[in-house]
Amino acid sequence: MEKFIWYNPTKLYFGKGQINKLNNELKQYDKILLVYGGGSIKKIGLYDEVIDILKKENKFYVELSGIEPNPRLQMVRKGIELVKENHIDLILAAGGGSTIDSAKAIAIGAVSEHDVLDLLLNKYVQEKGIPIGTILTLSATGTEMNPRSVISDTENNLKLGLGNWEVDATFPNFSICDPTYTLTVPKNHTINGIIDIMSHVLEQYFSRNENNILGEQMAESILKTMIEIGPKLIHDLENYKLRETMMICGTLAWNGMLRGLNNKGDWACHRMEHALSAVYDIAHGEGLAIITPQWMEFCAKKDPSQFVKFAVALFNVSIENKTDKEVAFEGIKRYRQFLKSIGAPLSMKHYGIKDYDLDDLVDKTMLGSKEIGRYIPLSRDDVKEIISQVF
Amino acid sequence: MEKFIWYNPTKLYFGKGQINKLNNELKQYDKILLVYGGGSIKKIGLYDEVIDILKKENKFYVELSGIEPNPRLQMVRKGIELVKENHIDLILAAGGGSTIDSAKAIAIGAVSEHDVLDLLLNKYVQEKGIPIGTILTLSATGTEMNPRSVISDTENNLKLGLGNWEVDATFPNFSICDPTYTLTVPKNHTINGIIDIMSHVLEQYFSRNENNILGEQMAESILKTMIEIGPKLIHDLENYKLRETMMICGTLAWNGMLRGLNNKGDWACHRMEHALSAVYDIAHGEGLAIITPQWMEFCAKKDPSQFVKFAVALFNVSIENKTDKEVAFEGIKRYRQFLKSIGAPLSMKHYGIKDYDLDDLVDKTMLGSKEIGRYIPLSRDDVKEIISQVF
Repeated sequence: MEKFIWYNPTKLYFGKGQINKLNNELKQYDKILLVYGGGSIKKIGLYDEVIDILKKENKFYVELSGIEPNPRLQMVRKGIELVKENHIDLILAAGGGSTIDSAKAIAIGAVSEHDVLDLLLNKYVQEKGIPIGTILTLSATGTEMNPRSVISDTENNLKLGLGNWEVDATFPNFSICDPTYTLTVPKNHTINGIIDIMSHVLEQYFSRNENNILGEQMAESILKTMIEIGPKLIHDLENYKLRETMMICGTLAWNGMLRGLNNKGDWACHRMEHALSAVYDIAHGEGLAIITPQWMEFCAKKDPSQFVKFAVALFNVSIENKTDKEVAFEGIKRYRQFLKSIGAPLSMKHYGIKDYDLDDLVDKTMLGSKEIGRYIPLSRDDVKEIISQVF
Repeated sequence: MEKFIWYNPTKLYFGKGQINKLNNELKQYDKILLVYGGGSIKKIGLYDEVIDILKKENKFYVELSGIEPNPRLQMVRKGIELVKENHIDLILAAGGGSTIDSAKAIAIGAVSEHDVLDLLLNKYVQEKGIPIGTILTLSATGTEMNPRSVISDTENNLKLGLGNWEVDATFPNFSICDPTYTLTVPKNHTINGIIDIMSHVLEQYFSRNENNILGEQMAESILKTMIEIGPKLIHDLENYKLRETMMICGTLAWNGMLRGLNNKGDWACHRMEHALSAVYDIAHGEGLAIITPQWMEFCAKKDPSQFVKFAVALFNVSIENKTDKEVAFEGIKRYRQFLKSIGAPLSMKHYGIKDYDLDDLVDKTMLGSKEIGRYIPLSRDDVKEIISQVF
């Protein structure tokens, strides 16, 4: 194993009814910015629940609503203004990844001497931020228990990531994860959530880390669980137990543990996907479903070793009378079949997109790096080859 | 799943050479109490390394050495005096479970208005303590990344546990886990560590938690890893890779994650073992090896369901043409064989102990409770039956 640091100060409240811990968590704060997206938290009654608690506890609060998928820098700037104007001391985000990610960028943007865009461009590390609490309504990104945030700079068609794993600034102080709030998530968002969760694990599984017996099994446990419940959930969207399992998988997929055990991970697929969704504004999960199998095939040709483990552990692919490459490709085929079975798109053709600027997509993937990824470090040409396959 | 809270603010530095993070962690402190056991940290050079850093960083420090296995309340009291006299602001524990557990009791005893014995008896919850840093030299208890501590009150032959999972007080602020420091751990302590780690997982695995697909696989991952490496390590004590794997298993076995996923766990075996080691001063790991298979047989007779999963997942026991009880008992037999293979004792006869006061052992197990354990709640009579089997 490579040496690592694992730090995660978020207090996780998991399970039915955990909203009743909110008033206690609010005790030390006075002025709250409530951040949310569209109407879904109103539809499921969560908005009323939260407002009742805020009123009962006599908190001053302001609202920032309308956070969209692939959350925008403009909204972050608006949030920062609200925090400054109102001397906010807690940002409470109720929603999915976009809402919580926006809260994180606001939390550090509001106290930093630097412009939030410079923080998003990782020019500076901001060690402290306004405290953040979250109430999760969509299982996908794991943002409820990690410091990461992805914000879209639509002026420049860029998706930018922030969040340092060693400082407190953008870890939520507490997160309430009640699967009940995810029961009405529509099918397409559920599919994307499944893909996102599994992709987080895959990025960490396809790393280079010798002697990682436990870390690999931990990763496989989440992947196997998602393969087991994913197709069932797509046909039974309001099943509490399946939602519960998906939620805990989502949180554990990307909370620092697997990252530590698995030598930080590969993340090339995420970089390529961010380029695709920055340009075409497609859902992150769909973009990952499209790019990942292509990446897998490219890499398995060069080194099938980890893909053999993947095929055997996840799909019980038999290794008898097969070369490593055959086992690896059988596993990739099975993963593609799994993605298809839950209704994920497997090509950009799905959107009828025919025109594309390959060099621009590669630029937006590389963002100035000479190589990306760790399992097989990818050059610009490699990235070009992989992305060209998805159209 | 049952609802749960998972909180763990310890910053874990895992891997070779992580001691070089110590000076940075010390920055915010001035007066340090260095706690350690016998000579082992001097033998492996860790003492010199730490002292060098303390001197280079111009820290004031005092030492509390001589912490023994099954650490004593008297030493905790001595540490509390040192903290108060010297206005200590960080307790740095370098050693195994006993050393770190003592540091935790000192950390809260030194700032509480209550006597430390009352904290150990769980009469009061102490929310804050003196900050703690640890450098681990023995993989076993998981104390490096949890708030728990076990202290022996030798005057009353009692082992007392403290540590609240929801407050900061006894979580180490940081822990340095470098497998190098465990390379010279002798065989008997290594055996006990293996048993202790596996027992922590088993206590959490044999719980009652419906729909716990992921939590069970996470627990099985640690158990399978330990079954794979345990016997190898016993015959190759200075193998870095095996020590590394054992160390990460020990930390993850008992850091709150499995506890959350697995409905807090059973812990009846630990209660019975604490009674045995309080009376006979035997090693905790040995006591667990002796008591656990007896507990398993008692419980599997009443409800073999989880033992069937255990047998299949860990030992590939075939379920064909077998009743659940047969599968369960085959798994228990295989676990006993595993314990034997690493050289663990399986009966108190190992110590030649013939005289025993069964009622006293049961009293010390129950400590006033009517029932203990969660998989099968055990009455006084049940406990009596199980303990009587070990002599």
